Amino acid sequence: MPPTVTPVTVRDEDLAEIKWNDDGLAPAIVQDATTRQVLMFAWMNEPSLRRTLSEGRTVFWSRSRQELWRKGDTSGNRQWVREAYYDCDGDVLLFVIDQEGDGACHTGATSCFYRRFGGDPT
Amino acid sequence: MPPTVTPVTVRDEDLAEIKWNDDGLAPAIVQDATTRQVLMFAWMNEPSLRRTLSEGRTVFWSRSRQELWRKGDTSGNRQWVREAYYDCDGDVLLFVIDQEGDGACHTGATSCFYRRFGGDPT
Repeated sequence: MPPTVTPVTVRDEDLAEIKWNDDGLAPAIVQDATTRQVLMFAWMNEPSLRRTLSEGRTVFWSRSRQELWRKGDTSGNRQWVREAYYDCDGDVLLFVIDQEGDGACHTGATSCFYRRFGGDPT
Repeated sequence: MPPTVTPVTVRDEDLAEIKWNDDGLAPAIVQDATTRQVLMFAWMNEPSLRRTLSEGRTVFWSRSRQELWRKGDTSGNRQWVREAYYDCDGDVLLFVIDQEGDGACHTGATSCFYRRFGGDPT
């Protein structure tokens, strides 16, 4: 069954609130819509944000490759946007998504945040 | 009743994994331990991370004021760390916390992410 796509209306009034950093980027937090687990963190520029909203799946800016990176195009681990938020200062983005495939992390883990300070509880 | 404090053991093996950016900082995501809501985003340097773990409450680096900022010292909205994680690349931090007081946001909101792209659902 194909995934359900729920695009978000791209409104000028929202985009006008976003303050990009000196590199034209903003941090993007990705959270699972069902488990509420924080899955990953990446960066977006304005084109990637517009595509994320209009396509209803996450598109980031790869700082290492200096190119748009549509999550899951290679891995199949696509992220379907259900809700998208920006913070009080307009300089951080939050996406609540349904994760397709194995997980969000390139290691194969569900979440990139699988290492715990102090070690796992005994 | 005083808040329960649960310090996290500061281990060299954890700190050695953290990759600080050119400014000596790493992004820090803060999530509510009960609701799992993403509350805020800020930055830490190594001293603030060490204090966050050892004191069991969040301490950030204020880029605007260029000083350590122990969350809640002024507002009373302290954040008590229950779990702390770092990501696969070692360059992003995640803190799962109990929020004291009115909320995490300086606006008085529970979360800084109270503005939704596309507007609130009708």
